[in-house]
Amino acid sequence: MSNKTNTTATTKTLKAADEIDKIRLNLVDDWKVLSSVYDLLHNEKAFCVSEADRDAVKIVHFMQPNEMKQLIDLSIDENKTHTVEEIQNLCRLVIKYSVKTNHGRFHNQLFGQMDPYGLMGQWITDALNASAYTYEVGPVFSLMETEIIRTVCQLAGYVEGDGIFAPGGSISNMYGLVLARYKRHPQVKTAGMFGMRPLALFTSEESHYSFVKAAHWLGLGADNCVIVKTNERGQMLSDDLEAKILQAQEKGLEPFFVNATAGTTVLGAFDDLNETADVCDKYGLWLHVDACLGGAALVSYNNRHLLAGLERTHSFAWNPHKSLGAPLQCSLFLTRERDLLNRCNSIQVNYLFQQDKFYDVSYDTGNKSVQCGRKIDAFKFWLMLKARGYGSFGRLLDHAIDISKVLVEKIRQRSSERFRLVMDEYQYMNVCFWYIPKALRGLDETKEWRERLYAVAPKIKERMAFTGTIMIGYTPLQYRSLGNFFRMVFTCFPVLEEKELDFILDEIERLGDECEY
Amino acid sequence: MSNKTNTTATTKTLKAADEIDKIRLNLVDDWKVLSSVYDLLHNEKAFCVSEADRDAVKIVHFMQPNEMKQLIDLSIDENKTHTVEEIQNLCRLVIKYSVKTNHGRFHNQLFGQMDPYGLMGQWITDALNASAYTYEVGPVFSLMETEIIRTVCQLAGYVEGDGIFAPGGSISNMYGLVLARYKRHPQVKTAGMFGMRPLALFTSEESHYSFVKAAHWLGLGADNCVIVKTNERGQMLSDDLEAKILQAQEKGLEPFFVNATAGTTVLGAFDDLNETADVCDKYGLWLHVDACLGGAALVSYNNRHLLAGLERTHSFAWNPHKSLGAPLQCSLFLTRERDLLNRCNSIQVNYLFQQDKFYDVSYDTGNKSVQCGRKIDAFKFWLMLKARGYGSFGRLLDHAIDISKVLVEKIRQRSSERFRLVMDEYQYMNVCFWYIPKALRGLDETKEWRERLYAVAPKIKERMAFTGTIMIGYTPLQYRSLGNFFRMVFTCFPVLEEKELDFILDEIERLGDECEY
Repeated sequence: MSNKTNTTATTKTLKAADEIDKIRLNLVDDWKVLSSVYDLLHNEKAFCVSEADRDAVKIVHFMQPNEMKQLIDLSIDENKTHTVEEIQNLCRLVIKYSVKTNHGRFHNQLFGQMDPYGLMGQWITDALNASAYTYEVGPVFSLMETEIIRTVCQLAGYVEGDGIFAPGGSISNMYGLVLARYKRHPQVKTAGMFGMRPLALFTSEESHYSFVKAAHWLGLGADNCVIVKTNERGQMLSDDLEAKILQAQEKGLEPFFVNATAGTTVLGAFDDLNETADVCDKYGLWLHVDACLGGAALVSYNNRHLLAGLERTHSFAWNPHKSLGAPLQCSLFLTRERDLLNRCNSIQVNYLFQQDKFYDVSYDTGNKSVQCGRKIDAFKFWLMLKARGYGSFGRLLDHAIDISKVLVEKIRQRSSERFRLVMDEYQYMNVCFWYIPKALRGLDETKEWRERLYAVAPKIKERMAFTGTIMIGYTPLQYRSLGNFFRMVFTCFPVLEEKELDFILDEIERLGDECEY
Repeated sequence: MSNKTNTTATTKTLKAADEIDKIRLNLVDDWKVLSSVYDLLHNEKAFCVSEADRDAVKIVHFMQPNEMKQLIDLSIDENKTHTVEEIQNLCRLVIKYSVKTNHGRFHNQLFGQMDPYGLMGQWITDALNASAYTYEVGPVFSLMETEIIRTVCQLAGYVEGDGIFAPGGSISNMYGLVLARYKRHPQVKTAGMFGMRPLALFTSEESHYSFVKAAHWLGLGADNCVIVKTNERGQMLSDDLEAKILQAQEKGLEPFFVNATAGTTVLGAFDDLNETADVCDKYGLWLHVDACLGGAALVSYNNRHLLAGLERTHSFAWNPHKSLGAPLQCSLFLTRERDLLNRCNSIQVNYLFQQDKFYDVSYDTGNKSVQCGRKIDAFKFWLMLKARGYGSFGRLLDHAIDISKVLVEKIRQRSSERFRLVMDEYQYMNVCFWYIPKALRGLDETKEWRERLYAVAPKIKERMAFTGTIMIGYTPLQYRSLGNFFRMVFTCFPVLEEKELDFILDEIERLGDECEY
């Protein structure tokens, strides 16, 4: 018996060795599968399609989760393997049933179509699979990160600035909070916040939820994230900011941080940075700007004024993966104070940031980060800027803002019986509105009527998903007691023409009148 | 004059309009640039090369930062644009001067070569440019994330587990800390930590630095990150853990969290999870496992015992982008407690996680995350597992561990005059050793001699960079008062054969004897 067991064990080991050899010997060939990726995507129309094709290509073949599980075998198995052809077929299905965010009629998020040069940079970055911590492993990329940060600081008026790429806006905003706290109370780095007077941060009711999540994570507490009121355009009221600062002080809290938003998520509002800076100066507070959406105005010719006063702030976050069309993730955190990022975040790390290297280790920027391994997000953005020059993005942005005003005008022209704007004017490229379907027209606009109106956008959205012709997001705005409305967001890509706006409104009308309310 | 100004303004506007039209009309063509990416990479030998080619292809053409700035024009300009051909040429240079981490002789980090199926998945993910928050935008991907989390929980023995993909191990470890704190003191989410008794976390001297950085960010303070001693193999001593817990309590701290490491960064040590769990059970502490490196043992056949007791822990972090060869970033955070991640991190977000959608919104997993926009990291890993079955990765991992033992044996055979092991035995795939060049042999091993020995690895590393034949990392280990030694890390890819080990040691000898000490 023991002999038999031994034989079985040996057979198993041999089998394993055979399999390993097979994988090893196939590896160079396996890499050739990458040569098929472009065609797979192109054939399934995942890339930007021509205007002529746009009507024919669906943005999404929507399937409910349970249907999708029937269409694609999602299960992962221990021993089941798949051939290259089977894998390619699976990829075809994945592409087919994924949302085509590059379609040109995807206006569902704060990002739209990508810049193809951005995707080119992303693919090359991925293939080289470096990590953004040392010059040793990412020599070219580390220089590019530095070059982009230098350029953006210059555009922002941060004379001695510094910065870092972070995995998304929420974490970029956290950098701002951590830096502000460290600057004020450097001992937090070693001792924590336990003995301290509660710190308070301030941000508007229109601002992004990441500050509430960050307040939790960083140990500050969501209740110490004080919400400031906004005016009718969605801009933070500096009077209310000052009142809330004083109230907080009275309650025994220590104000330390104010977030101003440049381009709010829903209304696209820009807080007045100079007014906010005046308040911050008066009370000695760190002023951070969540410019994740609106930072793109840095390169604009006609709308740079939206960021007036940026040079007076202490830090800001900007996501070129939103308006500018960089592939996700491309998020920058910038600060006016040179070396603070380094002092705040770096610690002694002997295996990675050795000081006895054979090159200038000031190019090892990874210790400024809270991450260790860090995806390289600089090259794709660099390649976009290199290909077009940042001026082109400025012009594209200005065009997107201009055309968004045309949409506002068209909505007005279609009469308030059919469309209703949430605000009369928008500072940026978000346009918020209700569609009033035939069934709801000419009725008394009672509470019940409004409830029915608020159900319209979700129903049209469902029809959009099933027809696959267009995708536009909707949202309520609770602090204004407003129910669901459409939020159409313009971006540098696609570059829209006026006739496309008519299509958008016509399609909303067409789909809206098909539904029952 | 006013006429002239008007004309200039009009000309400018027209020029801008022309340029926008040009960009718009070129866009479909621009996307074709992506068809050249595979060839660019292939021609510059950025992909896995055959064994025959390995000697001919350099891993890196190392250039000092200032030389690199001469070779590649890094500057970004407002108006300077580049043609497709110029962009392709720039990309060629970027590829040429980047480190070829897929070369097969890149052993410089905890990651090595990628699995090409992983890169295929990454490229497709990038091209579809979705975000991992809602089923609406990433229908297929959201199901895949759920499927992978389900499978990994099963492998880990987390019966009712949950999890999320995070941007790297440092942030995955932060998830563990935040969850543990929330579980113990849910009011931290709203009130912060200000009034509380100082919380203390425990992790070994061999563990990763991310816990110290996290302690700062989360407001706990680096001093409250208590460092526990390790045994000669680098494993956390549970006696010392218990002693440190009691000491912390005496000092008025409240212990709440213990990190055990499964696969330490330098020595590849695995803490004993059962022993650690006994201590944590006794004191009611959350037990997290930083298995960023060693989590791969989950799929192993012969080395799964390294993770014995994992089912008793509360959470763990695992980076398939390390040993398994998934493209960076691929990092999972898992927890045993169903729904805790959701209760801990989610807040009301009306514009994204609407509750009146037309599909089952339990598939919108984004609110469990601290991020908002989140890169999709599931598909690449899913595709790797689908293509090969996770059993293959288990066999590759076992092979990598086996072959690392062969290297240890070979180092021993080359005699202690030429090579010296840092430890006699290694639990995982890290092998740490010194090379003693001719110039240092047969001398008294005094303090001065050791200082000279510690300068050897950096010098050989410099030679490696300039010859481009191989890349292996080095590090000191200060808590053991040890100076620089080589840390060779094995990974599933490349699949190494015994003869390659001889090359590695020969090359170290060759380069080492060229240097002066």
